[in-house]
Amino acid sequence: MKRKFRAGILGATGAVGQKFVELLEGHPWFEITALAASERSAGKPYREAVNWIGAGEIPAGIAAMTVESATPDLECDFVFSGLDAAVAGDLEERFARAGYPVLSNARNHRMDPVTPLLIPEVNPDHTALIERQAWGDGFIVTNPNCSTVGLVCALRPLVDAFGVEAVQVTTFQALSGAGYPGVSALDIVGNVTPYIGGEEEKMASEPRKLLGALAPEGIVPLDVAISAQCNRVPVLEGHLECVSVKLRRPASPEDARRAFLDFRNPLADRSLPTAPERFLEVFDDPRFPQPRRHLDLGGGMTVSIGRIRPCEVLDLKFVVLVHNTIRGAAGGAVLNAELLVSQGYLKHRKQTLTV
Amino acid sequence: MKRKFRAGILGATGAVGQKFVELLEGHPWFEITALAASERSAGKPYREAVNWIGAGEIPAGIAAMTVESATPDLECDFVFSGLDAAVAGDLEERFARAGYPVLSNARNHRMDPVTPLLIPEVNPDHTALIERQAWGDGFIVTNPNCSTVGLVCALRPLVDAFGVEAVQVTTFQALSGAGYPGVSALDIVGNVTPYIGGEEEKMASEPRKLLGALAPEGIVPLDVAISAQCNRVPVLEGHLECVSVKLRRPASPEDARRAFLDFRNPLADRSLPTAPERFLEVFDDPRFPQPRRHLDLGGGMTVSIGRIRPCEVLDLKFVVLVHNTIRGAAGGAVLNAELLVSQGYLKHRKQTLTV
Amino acid sequence: MKRKFRAGILGATGAVGQKFVELLEGHPWFEITALAASERSAGKPYREAVNWIGAGEIPAGIAAMTVESATPDLECDFVFSGLDAAVAGDLEERFARAGYPVLSNARNHRMDPVTPLLIPEVNPDHTALIERQAWGDGFIVTNPNCSTVGLVCALRPLVDAFGVEAVQVTTFQALSGAGYPGVSALDIVGNVTPYIGGEEEKMASEPRKLLGALAPEGIVPLDVAISAQCNRVPVLEGHLECVSVKLRRPASPEDARRAFLDFRNPLADRSLPTAPERFLEVFDDPRFPQPRRHLDLGGGMTVSIGRIRPCEVLDLKFVVLVHNTIRGAAGGAVLNAELLVSQGYLKHRKQTLTV
Amino acid sequence: MKRKFRAGILGATGAVGQKFVELLEGHPWFEITALAASERSAGKPYREAVNWIGAGEIPAGIAAMTVESATPDLECDFVFSGLDAAVAGDLEERFARAGYPVLSNARNHRMDPVTPLLIPEVNPDHTALIERQAWGDGFIVTNPNCSTVGLVCALRPLVDAFGVEAVQVTTFQALSGAGYPGVSALDIVGNVTPYIGGEEEKMASEPRKLLGALAPEGIVPLDVAISAQCNRVPVLEGHLECVSVKLRRPASPEDARRAFLDFRNPLADRSLPTAPERFLEVFDDPRFPQPRRHLDLGGGMTVSIGRIRPCEVLDLKFVVLVHNTIRGAAGGAVLNAELLVSQGYLKHRKQTLTV
Repeated sequence: MKRKFRAGILGATGAVGQKFVELLEGHPWFEITALAASERSAGKPYREAVNWIGAGEIPAGIAAMTVESATPDLECDFVFSGLDAAVAGDLEERFARAGYPVLSNARNHRMDPVTPLLIPEVNPDHTALIERQAWGDGFIVTNPNCSTVGLVCALRPLVDAFGVEAVQVTTFQALSGAGYPGVSALDIVGNVTPYIGGEEEKMASEPRKLLGALAPEGIVPLDVAISAQCNRVPVLEGHLECVSVKLRRPASPEDARRAFLDFRNPLADRSLPTAPERFLEVFDDPRFPQPRRHLDLGGGMTVSIGRIRPCEVLDLKFVVLVHNTIRGAAGGAVLNAELLVSQGYLKHRKQTLTV
Repeated sequence: MKRKFRAGILGATGAVGQKFVELLEGHPWFEITALAASERSAGKPYREAVNWIGAGEIPAGIAAMTVESATPDLECDFVFSGLDAAVAGDLEERFARAGYPVLSNARNHRMDPVTPLLIPEVNPDHTALIERQAWGDGFIVTNPNCSTVGLVCALRPLVDAFGVEAVQVTTFQALSGAGYPGVSALDIVGNVTPYIGGEEEKMASEPRKLLGALAPEGIVPLDVAISAQCNRVPVLEGHLECVSVKLRRPASPEDARRAFLDFRNPLADRSLPTAPERFLEVFDDPRFPQPRRHLDLGGGMTVSIGRIRPCEVLDLKFVVLVHNTIRGAAGGAVLNAELLVSQGYLKHRKQTLTV
Repeated sequence: MKRKFRAGILGATGAVGQKFVELLEGHPWFEITALAASERSAGKPYREAVNWIGAGEIPAGIAAMTVESATPDLECDFVFSGLDAAVAGDLEERFARAGYPVLSNARNHRMDPVTPLLIPEVNPDHTALIERQAWGDGFIVTNPNCSTVGLVCALRPLVDAFGVEAVQVTTFQALSGAGYPGVSALDIVGNVTPYIGGEEEKMASEPRKLLGALAPEGIVPLDVAISAQCNRVPVLEGHLECVSVKLRRPASPEDARRAFLDFRNPLADRSLPTAPERFLEVFDDPRFPQPRRHLDLGGGMTVSIGRIRPCEVLDLKFVVLVHNTIRGAAGGAVLNAELLVSQGYLKHRKQTLTV
Repeated sequence: MKRKFRAGILGATGAVGQKFVELLEGHPWFEITALAASERSAGKPYREAVNWIGAGEIPAGIAAMTVESATPDLECDFVFSGLDAAVAGDLEERFARAGYPVLSNARNHRMDPVTPLLIPEVNPDHTALIERQAWGDGFIVTNPNCSTVGLVCALRPLVDAFGVEAVQVTTFQALSGAGYPGVSALDIVGNVTPYIGGEEEKMASEPRKLLGALAPEGIVPLDVAISAQCNRVPVLEGHLECVSVKLRRPASPEDARRAFLDFRNPLADRSLPTAPERFLEVFDDPRFPQPRRHLDLGGGMTVSIGRIRPCEVLDLKFVVLVHNTIRGAAGGAVLNAELLVSQGYLKHRKQTLTV
């Protein structure tokens, strides 16, 4: 990488925006050149505009940067969007229309027919949809909902090897998935809440697109029934998911284990900086994976699988763990950007002099 | 009740034993006349033998009682057993053989063909099995595993109204279910553990017996496939369960809701002191039930149900909450004893003078 | 009590307001006849206006009541105020001026020279200040900050018996003290925050007034130096406080223990319904008191003390536990109202007919 | 470092032993050549003998090593001891007598007159005591109790600059300080326990030795009165401490802040691999430091200080945070070993051939 790509961050002061700042610190390909947030923050140094919720401190080079308004005149080659869904839909389109590639974590455009909903190891070919977008040089690429990501990463090898007809999934979702301030401590300490608004719908629909086939007429969704039951638990980071699947061709737990381990990772030869050494980790110890212990495998980008065993009702059941704010949000978007670089979709924009 | 029944407690110093002590305080039908525990505790006043883990203090009348050895010469009409499974099998049989009715919370005898596995609202007629036991005046009646109880209470009305062919259940189980000291805080604070040894097997088998039919040859188990995924969460009390069911006859969520609300409680006319006013509580607010908020409904004896909705894979899905140490353990055994009194199985034994 | 007093609740939908509703359910002297809240809630049934955060359900009789605006034309004999400090100052004065006795939990008027800051067991004579208030029939009486209450209840016997010159206190404060939604779960799960805005100042000043002497010129504050360090911990209810005191006359831990146990409770002969049987509970087991275990002693109105031992720097140190939303807030205000009834300050107002 | 020192670990399967394994992974000066534990573990591969409680996985090179008995014939230049106090006293002496330098985390020898109780930044000269030990080539050096460490690191600059006459400290101690399985989850979730056996005594005595002066007759303890109140909170790692100090010479909060920031770190020129870039971190934001956010500063070796302000009873008060299992235990012992290398006390032992 001769010259780094200049990244802007939309929604830079929010929970996801902060995670982008953290993950891009020292990134070999990308450097943050613009931080944009709401009018309330614009004009302030980042350190004053942000209520930094991460461990440790704001990266030194970023703390003093001035936050800008989220208008499409940022000095950067592309933008990561950690915008809230309430404003993301419109703002992201304005940036795309102005010629910026937009790597979005928001849900607004995920199900648009010409917008790739992307997990590089799962459906890297879906980026071809970019060519059907009508924004000129700009485009929008999205990453899925955090709980969808873990599920789909685990399903991909099973779909390839045996076909999947139906999926039951019950989630144990971490607090960080609700943003900040998010969940009141009074609602969740020593408690479980069996409802997360809109989450079950996303888990029922997004995987079908992610696992779908690219066709001349667009993405043909995978024909799979998905039933999700989504719950919040008093865990800081890491979504755990109990999954049962009905397969199209019979497979034993050991067959599934081999499918996970033998999965041909399409990123294998691409040397993307954020891609983990192991896409999937499979545990044989029945106590694992656990959020607190295995969250950070592969820098938070590895998806962990355990307890593969027969299901008395469908065919197989197992447990999945995903780092919801890294693989499931900001880290996923960064990996998407890296894939787009390697595929040639992301280019250096002309340097405007802002004198 | 002219004269109270004299209850002994086996395993009186353990977590379940303590719950028996708590629940029997002020009971209108039963009074504790014997506390038995291991040799280490025998001979000590209860207050010294026990590491009291409950809220508040040991009931005054019990604190000074002397703990006895768990040998079948206790001064009482029947015994509650909170014994550990490691010793319960043999000891409970010795008490039954010596003529004591044994109301056991241990798993050892639950699946014995002639031992009732009993939830009074679910299968009160199964107590007829007592007559097939070969212990003379003594007998053994068991209550189910704590996570089984919640599930089965919710299934009973559905089985009656529509038939149930298959059940998927994922549990969020509280710490108290593991006894004391049980789970290390380092293993569970801010964490979930996706494995509880032996639990999934119990949930797959016990409901079939509980929902089975009493026949001349014994209990004919219900023909239902059950797949359980059991998890421990950092909640003190209250097992939450996400359930999906495949029915034998079609039913809408509203049909199921009506089945829960209209369930004819077989205890309705029996005035058992521990029976809750409402056996099942149905919530329409999608955020409910929650362990911390709804745990104590009906004194911990009500089972709560919420989020009844269609399942994309089976037919219906919903959430169940059960107080695992009251309805799911000691309270369940006390209600069983009350049913046995009302059915005439529990009688006053001759008062032996221990001079 | 021939006829119950009619109580209004200001701020009825807030966390403290809800606690008033809970505690007044079935109260032998008081009945809720008016619920007042912000304009947003006015006109709605209480069940719709409130986000009920307590365990269980809204008392049936209250759920259907219509919430009113907080204007001083409520149909009641007096009001409890659970108003937020942002609006309490002005609103409470308007009610007092209109002739209503106001029993306030807000901090605004606590340090006013003619406003009693009241804990019935500690300074029941301070209610004489009411006569110096210039509101006509109305008046304002306040209860202290939740963390102050526990400290002062423990100090009262020591001040009486030995004199207290200086106090060091470090608090472990529960989440409920911050109201709802209050603390973000992301800030406190598995964490401690060593700062609660304004809290240390209140603990340094309020006890001096509470323990002060009623004199012709007003309350002469107790001459005691208080240093507080206030911290939030992931506990739902119950403030624990580690206290060290420098006494004016020497005393051993056993002397202090006796002072706590022998304290002559000024409420002893008054039969106030909310007064606990034991004002102070003293534990000898060094592990106690603990929030989760001893929170509810005396219905949440007992203050618990433990670990009385010599201090290497001052004279004695010990641990105090107080239920912050009952004794430390709503329950304290209810007990204050009961004292005012027994002292004759609280009277039936003329019944206005609202036709 | 031409040739790495060979380190043995006593108590290698325990919580502290595991932390040694974690911290020595990739250490530039030390390599683990021997793992010793109880007879139960001896002979097994480490991966089988240990119940690994850390995040991630056992370092690959260590997992296959065979655990040995803790007898003084280990193939190593020195040993780290994470032994339990029940056995550490005797075993460590046997190793010292056999010629091994012993770097111990156990409490048994801490207060021995000729045993250095060592924090390299605080009292590096105390290692001279080694020369007075009578074990031949072997010797014992200890690190302090985890809660002592944070306190003493913060006191050192104040003692140097102003003198310290008295200290009040209240601790909020993490679960990991109790080892594994340690605290039962039922005792601590949503709770605080105001008692940790033996802890207050250690905090009252160890700092006096650590801050004492090396004299011909041994360490002359600092003349300071210390009163500690020790509490367990539901935090995984990181002891927070609320401290008040009485100084010998007046100082403002700003004076103290400068004393912390200007402290001349005696390790400044030694380039010890485990020494953090910043020994002390001072926060101006009143909400900080917090266990979860600032635990890992300086790789867990930085001690954080915040909320420096006047104390109404003594002179100044502030908050201290220390990583209890790194700076406060295994990391402290590793840094001690590094200091001993740089001072020439730690040497390569002759390589015995075990063939």
